[in-house]
Amino acid sequence: MVLVIKQGAEEAQLENLIEWLKSQGIETHLSKGHFQTILGLVGDTRHVDIDLLSGLAIVESVMRISEPFKSANRKFHPDDTVIDICGNKIGGGNFQFIAGPCSVESPEQICSIAREVKAAGATLLRGGAFKPRTSPYAFQGMRGEGLKLLLEAKKETGMPIVTEIMDLSHIDLFEDVDCIQVGARNMQNFELLKELGHSRKPILLKRGLANTMQELLMSAEYIMAGGNDNVILCERGIRTFETYTRNTMDVSAVPLLHEKSHLPVIVDPSHAAGFARLVEPLALAAAAAGADGLMIEVHNDPAHALCDGPQALRPDEFAETVKKVNAVRKALGADD
Amino acid sequence: MVLVIKQGAEEAQLENLIEWLKSQGIETHLSKGHFQTILGLVGDTRHVDIDLLSGLAIVESVMRISEPFKSANRKFHPDDTVIDICGNKIGGGNFQFIAGPCSVESPEQICSIAREVKAAGATLLRGGAFKPRTSPYAFQGMRGEGLKLLLEAKKETGMPIVTEIMDLSHIDLFEDVDCIQVGARNMQNFELLKELGHSRKPILLKRGLANTMQELLMSAEYIMAGGNDNVILCERGIRTFETYTRNTMDVSAVPLLHEKSHLPVIVDPSHAAGFARLVEPLALAAAAAGADGLMIEVHNDPAHALCDGPQALRPDEFAETVKKVNAVRKALGADD
Amino acid sequence: MVLVIKQGAEEAQLENLIEWLKSQGIETHLSKGHFQTILGLVGDTRHVDIDLLSGLAIVESVMRISEPFKSANRKFHPDDTVIDICGNKIGGGNFQFIAGPCSVESPEQICSIAREVKAAGATLLRGGAFKPRTSPYAFQGMRGEGLKLLLEAKKETGMPIVTEIMDLSHIDLFEDVDCIQVGARNMQNFELLKELGHSRKPILLKRGLANTMQELLMSAEYIMAGGNDNVILCERGIRTFETYTRNTMDVSAVPLLHEKSHLPVIVDPSHAAGFARLVEPLALAAAAAGADGLMIEVHNDPAHALCDGPQALRPDEFAETVKKVNAVRKALGADD
Amino acid sequence: MVLVIKQGAEEAQLENLIEWLKSQGIETHLSKGHFQTILGLVGDTRHVDIDLLSGLAIVESVMRISEPFKSANRKFHPDDTVIDICGNKIGGGNFQFIAGPCSVESPEQICSIAREVKAAGATLLRGGAFKPRTSPYAFQGMRGEGLKLLLEAKKETGMPIVTEIMDLSHIDLFEDVDCIQVGARNMQNFELLKELGHSRKPILLKRGLANTMQELLMSAEYIMAGGNDNVILCERGIRTFETYTRNTMDVSAVPLLHEKSHLPVIVDPSHAAGFARLVEPLALAAAAAGADGLMIEVHNDPAHALCDGPQALRPDEFAETVKKVNAVRKALGADD
Repeated sequence: MVLVIKQGAEEAQLENLIEWLKSQGIETHLSKGHFQTILGLVGDTRHVDIDLLSGLAIVESVMRISEPFKSANRKFHPDDTVIDICGNKIGGGNFQFIAGPCSVESPEQICSIAREVKAAGATLLRGGAFKPRTSPYAFQGMRGEGLKLLLEAKKETGMPIVTEIMDLSHIDLFEDVDCIQVGARNMQNFELLKELGHSRKPILLKRGLANTMQELLMSAEYIMAGGNDNVILCERGIRTFETYTRNTMDVSAVPLLHEKSHLPVIVDPSHAAGFARLVEPLALAAAAAGADGLMIEVHNDPAHALCDGPQALRPDEFAETVKKVNAVRKALGADD
Repeated sequence: MVLVIKQGAEEAQLENLIEWLKSQGIETHLSKGHFQTILGLVGDTRHVDIDLLSGLAIVESVMRISEPFKSANRKFHPDDTVIDICGNKIGGGNFQFIAGPCSVESPEQICSIAREVKAAGATLLRGGAFKPRTSPYAFQGMRGEGLKLLLEAKKETGMPIVTEIMDLSHIDLFEDVDCIQVGARNMQNFELLKELGHSRKPILLKRGLANTMQELLMSAEYIMAGGNDNVILCERGIRTFETYTRNTMDVSAVPLLHEKSHLPVIVDPSHAAGFARLVEPLALAAAAAGADGLMIEVHNDPAHALCDGPQALRPDEFAETVKKVNAVRKALGADD
Repeated sequence: MVLVIKQGAEEAQLENLIEWLKSQGIETHLSKGHFQTILGLVGDTRHVDIDLLSGLAIVESVMRISEPFKSANRKFHPDDTVIDICGNKIGGGNFQFIAGPCSVESPEQICSIAREVKAAGATLLRGGAFKPRTSPYAFQGMRGEGLKLLLEAKKETGMPIVTEIMDLSHIDLFEDVDCIQVGARNMQNFELLKELGHSRKPILLKRGLANTMQELLMSAEYIMAGGNDNVILCERGIRTFETYTRNTMDVSAVPLLHEKSHLPVIVDPSHAAGFARLVEPLALAAAAAGADGLMIEVHNDPAHALCDGPQALRPDEFAETVKKVNAVRKALGADD
Repeated sequence: MVLVIKQGAEEAQLENLIEWLKSQGIETHLSKGHFQTILGLVGDTRHVDIDLLSGLAIVESVMRISEPFKSANRKFHPDDTVIDICGNKIGGGNFQFIAGPCSVESPEQICSIAREVKAAGATLLRGGAFKPRTSPYAFQGMRGEGLKLLLEAKKETGMPIVTEIMDLSHIDLFEDVDCIQVGARNMQNFELLKELGHSRKPILLKRGLANTMQELLMSAEYIMAGGNDNVILCERGIRTFETYTRNTMDVSAVPLLHEKSHLPVIVDPSHAAGFARLVEPLALAAAAAGADGLMIEVHNDPAHALCDGPQALRPDEFAETVKKVNAVRKALGADD
């Protein structure tokens, strides 16, 4: 970390600052030029509050040189992390399709979709039991009951399940869930993240709607700081001024998160797009950019499509998308 | 709600849709023109999922005519809601200053600041016990211990306290807190909002960093749907491209939230600005635009200022700001 | 266009509005329900000012049903427009690589890069003569002299040239340019767009940094309204909160602009990314999503790389990217 | 400017960089620590391209210490600039109301509004002759004819006029205009800014819809670099995710631009709000935050209000707003 000291700062204040930093275990390195005085901070500066320093009367500006995250940082862990969900590996060249309905609605629905997406190439089953909804009057999901139906579908098809947790008080209900999802709106629910740090289950962490990649990595760091290294990062679209799409899929997050971190990076084109006909091109783009997996919403029965999200594909559309994604990955040298 | 039906939609599909809406208790009103077919939805459309309808194959677009929130809506409650926190009224022409430190740090610190802000004109004491921090390595607050210190400061000064909750599992610790704050990052923590709906305490609900006013009102609706009408809305700055400020205070939120809702609207200029010298002009702007109160960070001892947030005022600066805010309010016809 | 009339609007005002719309050549279709009155507008509503109507005292809200652009609209022109630049076709399945340096610097530089990108697979040469720079103290380009050097490079290599115009007063200098680029910051320079509408040259129109796709199409409409249908749309990244990239490439713009318009859509991954190592993954993503071409910055001599933009590829890197893009396009069924 | 050099950078590359900077007239100051090597740049770094340096292989990051603008910088010009428009001073404690219609429509309209706003307290007349419109099918203003009508209104009322230029080729038409406005969409039309730098007329420069304050100051710098120091900065709302307002007025721009620059800062609440009933609270907020003036749209005849912008006040509403703004300014110690 580098502090630029204001011109005309009092010597005594500067000494106080250096003294205080020392008391925090931070060594300093002072460099006085004709036009500017610079204070380099050496040591573990992760605990240093950049906002606090920026606000000091004698500080002109502060520049963080090293990233504020450590466990998630590729610098300290050059090899790709590979996460294994019941034998299905994600990361380090391993790619998985996670598919299923927006919400779990009935035993027939979830089992039927599970069979269809498995046949089409998906290896992990997704489905919402707890649903974060903007309106208190909207359907809030089948909750505990929905989790049971997901486990039944797992039993029938052998597919491990991925489903969203909304509050740490529900954690016991997720005992048999194979991968716990943290939704975009909970990306900075720090108490929840801490709790998941005590788990050893794979956590699928979605980027918040208006969060930067660094904030996403800091949230991963919360989980990893608790001892759980099994974090999968997920780009699902960010809020922009565009009105033709619900959110804007930030495809550059795939190569950049790979560069900054060793954690696997998957993409959810369904929520990014907001409607079905955009899912395939966005899925292809994500795969071409190097994603480690895709999470796609699929609905089961066209006759009941009314109750499925507008962003869901039909099973035959999903199967077609899987084929094209695989063709793109093969063209770019992927093994499988 | 109005649905525009696509040209060339099949009659059978349209009839299906009308039938399904009927089964949801929604009457429809069909109007076929030369160029467009419009379906008006009559009844309580709050439960209707606008995304779902938008995604239907035969629907061109959907326009919500009535606001999706009801309890918070001024249409159904024309008079200003006045919220009473231990005798201090907010809303309906009543204005309060809420002041105190960013974090509770020690009995001396919180009591000393409490006395000073009270002398300067504050009527409610704020102070963070649970601190939402982007980094897991940053100070997370004194937590339960901090709440106890706040209650001591209340005992000594008689000032009611406002402090932030971070998870619903902590709710029992907040039994003696006078007003519970929901932070910007938890504005869409729907499980927490539901829990607070079962309380009868005043809830100070902060707008999320990238949330619209309608989303803020929908979150207020979550609390009110549970039976708790004591919600104070708080503008605290939104994320924009600007880099000179930490956040951009949206002063237009004051008149607009007043127009859309009967709930009181206060402003937190300290977090919006991110540094102390902007707090006064932003506080004056908020008061001039009609805010029902201000929440301002104040630090106690210049000698220890290093540990206070860069956005905090000194007590004498705060006293000066209070005077100017009162002058502006008086110039605009306020009673007190 | 549909107008929702406020409850309790005076009959006389509504009649005035209907009368006024009639005088503008707009037929209306009134539908009064129990809860809402809706006025449908029939006819050519492109000339109707939506902001004006929204502001009327008796109007609750306005919904545009048809898109405000006509010449650029796929509805009225279902087939892909194919634009021919000296025999190089873009659109309708035809794909081109446009490559070259950020700025034209010398005859040697531009000719040498031209030869190298041609050998690697580029068919059109780009290069900046007029440079829009945020700072008045930064290099503003070789201007007229730069255009001459581009024409020399064209003569030597046979590659048609694409270069940016910054003001309509320079139009005469662009007489021999094959394709005129309008930069992101000029996307809403309406006087310039009108002037280009009188030309018949292909116009490469870049999306503004904070503009929606509809605004981009409205700017295309400005050019087309003047009689010039040769518009190529270009996604080059939009401004978001992300700090790891200079801009965020909106890959969903490719399928969406194709859906809304018949015009070709290309992508500039160099400016979207802001640095070289992101160019290839973004180029692959754009191609996978269906782009009709790519515009890529290439610098010539690694020894002089200091003076090239940080987002430029070396010629050998560019050649490698071309190969991979072609492999992805072939995997997805492209002919060439 | 401070460059952080990557760990493991080759000595030769670092020496090359230092050599090259020297050739640009920049002295360097190298500081090697255990963990990081820092290169301080001393001298006039305004000409140094920060993007170029950031992209160098051996550079980890770059921090600009001094602002990239000089003529507009308060550091080099501590006193407020006061701009005099035909005897009406703006800045340094002097405050003016600029008012008038959105568009000039007829001699009667512009003269009648001019008389009314003058009576209400306005000292400068605004009115659009050239209108930047998103749609080519919308009214583009009376253009040259509109300028003539403005000059007639000036003759009749004695009010100096402020009106927008859209292209540098129109500059001769503006010879008798007292203050030339550059609209938000032209804030980075650099060729136009350069041309206005050769003028000596006051320039009212509006902030772009998605531009930072630093970018606004860099655009002011373009004008000032040409020798024209008469620049008035204008906040008119920025684009955010909010949908209840057309734009979000950034009231913090007032104190911040005052801190960074000596130029006067005015606010246009009409365009920021997008509808009339928000204009007064936003005007009051801007005045309370220390603005040097307000630019407000006023329409003339309620009977013809249909043709006025939805954000325009009636003359009596404007008069009321003027009174309240003056009361707020007086309460805060203003002289007039």
